[in-house]
Amino acid sequence: MIIAVDAAGGDYYPKNPVTGGLAALEERQDLSILFIGPEDVVKKELNEHKYPKDRVDVADAPEVIGMHESPAQAVKTKKNSSIVRGLGVHAQGKANAFVSAGNTGALMAASAFALGRLEGVIRPSIATVYPNIRGMSLMIDVGANLEVKPEMLHQFGTMGDIYAREVMNIETPRVALLNVGEEEEKGTEILKQANQLLQGLPNFIGNVEGRDILYGNADVFVCDGYVGNILLKFGETIPSAFEHILLKEIERQQLPSDQISLISNLLKKAFEPFDYQRVGGVPFLGVNGVSLVGHGGSSTTAMKNMILSAARMVEEKVNKKIVASLN
Amino acid sequence: MIIAVDAAGGDYYPKNPVTGGLAALEERQDLSILFIGPEDVVKKELNEHKYPKDRVDVADAPEVIGMHESPAQAVKTKKNSSIVRGLGVHAQGKANAFVSAGNTGALMAASAFALGRLEGVIRPSIATVYPNIRGMSLMIDVGANLEVKPEMLHQFGTMGDIYAREVMNIETPRVALLNVGEEEEKGTEILKQANQLLQGLPNFIGNVEGRDILYGNADVFVCDGYVGNILLKFGETIPSAFEHILLKEIERQQLPSDQISLISNLLKKAFEPFDYQRVGGVPFLGVNGVSLVGHGGSSTTAMKNMILSAARMVEEKVNKKIVASLN
Repeated sequence: MIIAVDAAGGDYYPKNPVTGGLAALEERQDLSILFIGPEDVVKKELNEHKYPKDRVDVADAPEVIGMHESPAQAVKTKKNSSIVRGLGVHAQGKANAFVSAGNTGALMAASAFALGRLEGVIRPSIATVYPNIRGMSLMIDVGANLEVKPEMLHQFGTMGDIYAREVMNIETPRVALLNVGEEEEKGTEILKQANQLLQGLPNFIGNVEGRDILYGNADVFVCDGYVGNILLKFGETIPSAFEHILLKEIERQQLPSDQISLISNLLKKAFEPFDYQRVGGVPFLGVNGVSLVGHGGSSTTAMKNMILSAARMVEEKVNKKIVASLN
Repeated sequence: MIIAVDAAGGDYYPKNPVTGGLAALEERQDLSILFIGPEDVVKKELNEHKYPKDRVDVADAPEVIGMHESPAQAVKTKKNSSIVRGLGVHAQGKANAFVSAGNTGALMAASAFALGRLEGVIRPSIATVYPNIRGMSLMIDVGANLEVKPEMLHQFGTMGDIYAREVMNIETPRVALLNVGEEEEKGTEILKQANQLLQGLPNFIGNVEGRDILYGNADVFVCDGYVGNILLKFGETIPSAFEHILLKEIERQQLPSDQISLISNLLKKAFEPFDYQRVGGVPFLGVNGVSLVGHGGSSTTAMKNMILSAARMVEEKVNKKIVASLN
């Protein structure tokens, strides 16, 4: 299995994509990595490491799409960027998946363009793994579709269900519709109709509310991309916001330093599930391929985990299962 | 100034509304309270306390609307409930405001029906006070309007701006549109147009994202009622969720009991701003009257604070200022 890795994406390239890719090779012997990026830059980084030469290749992509470039524009004009070339290589079948910590908008646009949609999919979607007090759930959509139709929410539920089973190892995911109340008749016309359609999923548990997210009262939270995107970015600030609040209180109480370090350690541990680095990357679901995106600040571990998630999506034939469910 | 108080609303009536009302009388000498509820029940509770008899009155409302009753149905059939009668008394001018910790949906429906809209208001809205690491911001709408038009979002911004100034004492509130990106052209057509309209407010700071909420990067967050409602209920679970996570970690590390109590105290202090009791109640904005709703679990202090917020709305002529701004 060959995973194409964007070696020119994110805030710490080429180092983190390259070291993350090499770490993934150690974890799974059946993997090969095809790094996509400016060849000289990537090779220079590779030369800093020992690695199995027969399982690593580089495809030259001299152009770089910046993290804040306009996605549509960048994808259209930078044909030799790592994102456009990497997805092209994957579309041609020269790699089984493509992962990147680069510009999310550009990745979404290029994934949809280069890979096309899976049969029966109305609109591809972006999902995210969301932490809760029991573990991890999936939230879908988180920004690809700000406006939705009931049929789209139904498909998000179906695709999220399969991803949660096959990649997140949740045996029977509780799929739920994020709504303003639990009763079937709550919400907009779109949400009411989506609730009806989702009842076709045997493991749909109905509507849930904002209070159910952190308590982990569902495994797959289905919502439109507007609320999903707000929640995604809100969630990322929880650890730092509460560290700030607690440290301010520690200062006010003038606690001795040994107690401060006790509390700091405790906080670090407790907030670990909220560290986006652990998850690695999140998938575009509904495209005819395997394309994952990681946070711009992805660490080596995040890159490795994203590659391993991509490998799982490939071997579990997630897309084939999505097509079978939708058609 | 007379504030009508629902003495049959919330989980702890008549005790908390009555004691909260009497506490408000102590705080402001210019207030009188008109308790609305089953007369015998209210008088029995009043008899437990010493209070200025000339500043307290009771209006009989023998019916009670339960916390989980269907709002539309309840308002239509229970004409002698504390909610319907209390808003009627306010509409007739026999009280300057009405506050309740009862069924939010019923309060919203009855407020719109009994009070009507302020001149120029497209749709009344419900706002909430939302904590952040610097203090408190206002979020509007949080559930009255799940679907919005650009003009409605513009009005939410205008009404929120005035409430933040006059009731929350924020001198020049930073009004922002909650969106998926900071750039003007981000979001749906509705959000883009709302951004343009909101630029008419001198203190509009543009689009903000989910990550700006907890950091307090705006004072008034304008959004539709779907995302606002999800965020409101999500926010209420943050303290208990993190207490749960931290306690689990404390247990795992088998910390000694003196350290546990140190940490518990710290947490309690740090999460104080997230305690909805401190805020008291939140307003329906855009109705031709002053109507506030509190959490079902409102304490005596919460009831008192809600009454004081209502008094501030009355004395600062918030509605008059809203009408002047919109017309």
